[in-house]
Amino acid sequence: MDQPARLLDYRSKKEHLLIGLMSGTSLDGIDAALVAIRTKENGEIEDVALREFYYMPYSDELREWVMSLCSVETARVDRLTAVHYGLSEWYAYAVGQLMEKAGVSAAEVDAVCTHGQTIWHIAGRTPFPGPTGMTEVRASLQIGELSTLAERTGIPVVGNFRARDLAADGEGAPLVPYADFILFRHATKGRLLQNIGGIANVTVLPAGASIEEVVAFDTGPGNMIMDQIVQIVTEGKLRYDDAGRLAASGVVHQPLLDRLMQDPYYQIKPPKSTGREVYGRAFAQELSAEGAKLGLSGADLIATVTALTASSIAAAYLQFVIPTTKVEEVIVSGGGAHNQTLLRMLQSQLGTEMTITTTQQFGMPDDAKEAVAFAILGHETLMGRPSNVPSVTGAKRAVPLGNICF
Amino acid sequence: MDQPARLLDYRSKKEHLLIGLMSGTSLDGIDAALVAIRTKENGEIEDVALREFYYMPYSDELREWVMSLCSVETARVDRLTAVHYGLSEWYAYAVGQLMEKAGVSAAEVDAVCTHGQTIWHIAGRTPFPGPTGMTEVRASLQIGELSTLAERTGIPVVGNFRARDLAADGEGAPLVPYADFILFRHATKGRLLQNIGGIANVTVLPAGASIEEVVAFDTGPGNMIMDQIVQIVTEGKLRYDDAGRLAASGVVHQPLLDRLMQDPYYQIKPPKSTGREVYGRAFAQELSAEGAKLGLSGADLIATVTALTASSIAAAYLQFVIPTTKVEEVIVSGGGAHNQTLLRMLQSQLGTEMTITTTQQFGMPDDAKEAVAFAILGHETLMGRPSNVPSVTGAKRAVPLGNICF
Repeated sequence: MDQPARLLDYRSKKEHLLIGLMSGTSLDGIDAALVAIRTKENGEIEDVALREFYYMPYSDELREWVMSLCSVETARVDRLTAVHYGLSEWYAYAVGQLMEKAGVSAAEVDAVCTHGQTIWHIAGRTPFPGPTGMTEVRASLQIGELSTLAERTGIPVVGNFRARDLAADGEGAPLVPYADFILFRHATKGRLLQNIGGIANVTVLPAGASIEEVVAFDTGPGNMIMDQIVQIVTEGKLRYDDAGRLAASGVVHQPLLDRLMQDPYYQIKPPKSTGREVYGRAFAQELSAEGAKLGLSGADLIATVTALTASSIAAAYLQFVIPTTKVEEVIVSGGGAHNQTLLRMLQSQLGTEMTITTTQQFGMPDDAKEAVAFAILGHETLMGRPSNVPSVTGAKRAVPLGNICF
Repeated sequence: MDQPARLLDYRSKKEHLLIGLMSGTSLDGIDAALVAIRTKENGEIEDVALREFYYMPYSDELREWVMSLCSVETARVDRLTAVHYGLSEWYAYAVGQLMEKAGVSAAEVDAVCTHGQTIWHIAGRTPFPGPTGMTEVRASLQIGELSTLAERTGIPVVGNFRARDLAADGEGAPLVPYADFILFRHATKGRLLQNIGGIANVTVLPAGASIEEVVAFDTGPGNMIMDQIVQIVTEGKLRYDDAGRLAASGVVHQPLLDRLMQDPYYQIKPPKSTGREVYGRAFAQELSAEGAKLGLSGADLIATVTALTASSIAAAYLQFVIPTTKVEEVIVSGGGAHNQTLLRMLQSQLGTEMTITTTQQFGMPDDAKEAVAFAILGHETLMGRPSNVPSVTGAKRAVPLGNICF
């Protein structure tokens, strides 16, 4: 089928099978999710189901090549050009493996929806010599050529989602809140989708919310400080606190926690975002030195930084969510969802009126959620529907996201 | 109208109005062409007419920014990211100016077709760590985000044409021969489309040719050496030999011409390509020194290098075209079409059986031809039709080119 036929065929169907592809800034590899989406008569999504998942790690050599592109000092335009095409060979391979695992053929898949690999993201605006004088532009670079993926798989491809939100003067991020809205909104229950990755971020879904009422922001550090403190304390033997066992064996040092909670970020009104620059290695090393000065054991320090993540999340809810939104459920995703001590601390701070569960309990494993999210975004684009959330990204209007390659 | 409706609407129409955008490696600016295309019942192009043309020069500052991206030493990933978006502000501005000049509104234009700005082109293949070990990829980077252009103009955009041909294992270039075929093929006359830009290249269109019979290759230097010799001889006062007047005032030094014609490139069988690396500044400086040693006047040296371009073109025809293809007409385009001395030399070498004309005489000004070509390519993509020429690019199959953004 040629393009118009395929696109019209897509629009007229009620059941769609898509593949979502995500490769994150951690540069670990590719998450590939096979997703079935059912639409209602009016074109809205009725149901999303994860059918299969496949994870493909990058090789060390690929990781080095990609990592070299993410820094002004080491990025080379010749290498960037090669990786832009070569990375799609990996995506195509992951698509093939996923289809084999699921027992489906390319002809059964309606579209592949790919986030691409972020190489550079400009927060806010940057100066640029425009056609009528100096101006400012928003910009973010995701690589992985769509044409290569379409040619290798024989499946239509949608990708490069962030660009259109940026063009509409949004931040181009976050884009996952739209998927949170589709997957988890509830007619009568207020829900918070709390993702705890390196950074922790929340999507607020009031009961019966429309997309215009969705709010999302970074609450503060997620696993980033915890992981680094664990690595310092165990001298690199452990990379993270498995299930929160180390934190459970320590005691929170309340004065240190109180001081850490004075970080002015926690007082800023949303929308707001933070990153690796702030809660990086330097932050962890200073904190480790401070713990040593206070005579804290490794376990106590880990317990204290675990409490910091829990407290900063709870404080964000108490200041910026609870006053205006009734919340019944907190649904946790990301690596932090596996940290039992963290979840226990969060529950004790939030009280028993809010139930804490994980996306896993909704049939959505942590690893798969972002890949599923981009399948949802690509689906909406092929349906001719917008999928950015202007109240979250700051865009001037809701727009369909991405470019299409048949 | 949403995407599927727009695409289907495009397909069902017989008259299309498109804008083609080209910005070449000379980094001078943007060629914008308003093009009307009429299709036959079977979807083939029946007629192409240039309606309006607008040229927008880059500002010096933009040129510097873009130029810095075209070299491994100076390219910065943060700047590349900004220019990828910012350049489309220029494209959008050029589209606006063109529409104003033509008196048409955005609602009347079916699509904008943009080549983008080439930042890096890898000739042949380059090593890459693929999913199953070291492999090779083809790659070429054209920047200018489609989403920005679509958002600013409100017109669907097709662009990034080279990628799919590369994905199909072609060189991704040249792409203009498809447009030559559409614009200039003739049922009963064999035609050669001779473009004389910096490098000279020919598209061979046998009488009644099918697309599979089209051949194209670089014949050798175009204006590149002539222009540099003029600049050396006039100590920078003139940038090129206007209408070939300087060459007309000199005498060709036959022994030097004979020696220059021994360049092994002219013996290589097509398909073949050459570039700025070969016929650059060093080549011109050596040649100038040699001319001085032989006691040639500036005008004699200019006449001799003008004869070199004419002779290398004629030699290519005699060796690689005439033996298999009956040629009635040579249609010249590019800056060289304005060089009367060059055309006269070419005519005298080819004899009177071939008529030499210019694309200008076919209503297609030199400046506009490439922009028109990309409008044709984008049109074919929206019609669901391939537009690469595998016999020219080396691609494994004919494919529709480009990504679409609504």
